[in-house]
Amino acid sequence: MKIAIMAGDGIGPEVVGQALKVLRLVAPQAETEEAPVGQAGIDARGKPLPDETLALARRVDAILFGSVGVADEASIPRERRPGTGLLQLREALTLYANFRPAFMFPELIGASTLKPEVVDGLDLVILRELNGDVYFGKPRGFETNEKGERVGFNTMRYSESEVERIAHAAFRAARKRRRKVCSVDKANVLETMQLWREVMTRVGREYPDVELSHLFIDAASMSLMRNPKQFDVIVTGNMFGDILSDAAAMLTGSIGMLPSASLGVDRKGLYEPVHGSAPDIAGQDVANPLAAILSLAMMLRESFELEDKARQVENAVRTVLAQGYRTGDIYQPGTRRVGTTEMGDAVVQAL
Amino acid sequence: MKIAIMAGDGIGPEVVGQALKVLRLVAPQAETEEAPVGQAGIDARGKPLPDETLALARRVDAILFGSVGVADEASIPRERRPGTGLLQLREALTLYANFRPAFMFPELIGASTLKPEVVDGLDLVILRELNGDVYFGKPRGFETNEKGERVGFNTMRYSESEVERIAHAAFRAARKRRRKVCSVDKANVLETMQLWREVMTRVGREYPDVELSHLFIDAASMSLMRNPKQFDVIVTGNMFGDILSDAAAMLTGSIGMLPSASLGVDRKGLYEPVHGSAPDIAGQDVANPLAAILSLAMMLRESFELEDKARQVENAVRTVLAQGYRTGDIYQPGTRRVGTTEMGDAVVQAL
Ligand SMILES: CC(C)[C@H](C(=O)O)[C@@H](O)C(=O)O
Ligand SMILES: CC(C)[C@H](C(=O)O)[C@@H](O)C(=O)O
Repeated sequence: MKIAIMAGDGIGPEVVGQALKVLRLVAPQAETEEAPVGQAGIDARGKPLPDETLALARRVDAILFGSVGVADEASIPRERRPGTGLLQLREALTLYANFRPAFMFPELIGASTLKPEVVDGLDLVILRELNGDVYFGKPRGFETNEKGERVGFNTMRYSESEVERIAHAAFRAARKRRRKVCSVDKANVLETMQLWREVMTRVGREYPDVELSHLFIDAASMSLMRNPKQFDVIVTGNMFGDILSDAAAMLTGSIGMLPSASLGVDRKGLYEPVHGSAPDIAGQDVANPLAAILSLAMMLRESFELEDKARQVENAVRTVLAQGYRTGDIYQPGTRRVGTTEMGDAVVQAL
Repeated sequence: MKIAIMAGDGIGPEVVGQALKVLRLVAPQAETEEAPVGQAGIDARGKPLPDETLALARRVDAILFGSVGVADEASIPRERRPGTGLLQLREALTLYANFRPAFMFPELIGASTLKPEVVDGLDLVILRELNGDVYFGKPRGFETNEKGERVGFNTMRYSESEVERIAHAAFRAARKRRRKVCSVDKANVLETMQLWREVMTRVGREYPDVELSHLFIDAASMSLMRNPKQFDVIVTGNMFGDILSDAAAMLTGSIGMLPSASLGVDRKGLYEPVHGSAPDIAGQDVANPLAAILSLAMMLRESFELEDKARQVENAVRTVLAQGYRTGDIYQPGTRRVGTTEMGDAVVQAL
């Protein structure tokens, strides 16, 4: 069990620190090695994904990732943006399947801005394609048009095999769940998405036991708010997945609770909380470490096939919630407000 | 006052029919002429935007539009899709500024899936750029890659002047409201959106009395659900606007209530309900005509500068809601369930 620890920026180091305490307890045999990424990579080696960090990523079985990002990131040149480090890692390791579960903890239902009956029992997964689309398509850049003004451009692009592999990932995931896949595209307007829908439909025939439906992205963003419990697995492209997965996370009202896994062709994966680097609260011991701890649980399950250990960690998280422990983001009157470290300790205790 | 009536498909003709009754009453001098569009255009003349329909659109001062669309539209070749007719109209008339207000009717607050305190008093406008982006960018289409597989591709593209004109539209709109503009992009990943942000920032300096903020699209889709009342004018590109505006509409719980305006360089505009063609309930006299009627009010205000008439229509809509009239989509126990025609009649009565 070789694990790279890439804590990154902002609250990343704090929350990953708590997940590491849990790892030491449930899998003391794991070998870990730390490496800088994001702004931490720039500070240490001048690049958001230093060569040594990438080399380590290639060597290990799994990566526990914190978060990358600084304020006003868009004004920094692209090759020096912390987020670029994460994009390069996804591409270099061919981590094409990004699983972002959105589920409701019964204790936290009050934290949602949606009515309890709409989100009670919510349990869906957004499967976001992570290696293609307008994120990586070429050509891209700036040019000057015939009027002499600047133009910015990017290319949205998917090939058949790129859609096929994410389709198979979606149907396989649905088989372990409620056997429903909803593919989200904009096939009525975009050729890229027309190909997406064709391939999804074709691959879907190989999984007759899984129900496949299609929604346009605009309708999907409405349905997610209107009736989210109808969904099981939602599969979509990189750009739409970025948007839909954050919306889905927000349904639960507790983005500080949600883990994610980015998987490739083998069992190697990158595991990270859905939340960002939150520079405004970094270093104050107030961030919620449960998303990082639940990301570790996903790692134990997906990369190491340690289903029992994964369950133990997930149950420990449920236990501390039942015991009333809450970080500030999920605090409600009548519960016990704790900091990052105390929350991590409570999970260790529950284990 | 020359107005083209393009009722389109599905429930379009029914709801537009009610708006026409209102028009006859408040502006009997208006000259109207009908023309087929969408599937109706294909049925009548073999094209979603027949030449005669486009010629009429060029001649008139304003277009009252119903809705276009059929089931399984994505499987039809693009040039024969009903939605293509609408896209062609937007492009041919340079209707680049799509205003989609999302506001809460106090009587309908129960219809939202969000908690009342989150959406009570909600009043925002999504301003969606409507002539550029990946919707219209070239090159686009299908090609074969080096592995011999098919690839679908589209081009996301914005020029400085395209962003400038929508930026000015946003700041001008904000001056008539609460003087806040939030520009939504993905400048951390896409060059197109980096240009967008640069130009927004530059144009913003000409409006020092308007507060400008920026959000990435993923954060915006979260904030819209978390704290929608913070927003006044949200300005964004064609693709992100398609998604965000439907999400914003859904916040109100009553998409059957919301109007929109697509404006160009002069006062000519296209006015349409935000809802789609809803083929499943077409022809049954159950659709909600209030969005079409409120779209007419927007037309009176924007294309004809008849602010008083616009207010009268809007007040009549408020009156019928206060009187308890409800179509099926907004029905709640204790109110009076009516059909499309009866709702239209009630508005006429209130006027
Ligand atoms: C940091 C950024 C590049 C990234 C993305 O857009 O993919 C983030 O928003 C995410 O969703 O992981
Ligand atoms: C019908 C379709 C082409 C259209 C769009 O995507 O713009 C619709 O969804 C809209 O938002 O008006």
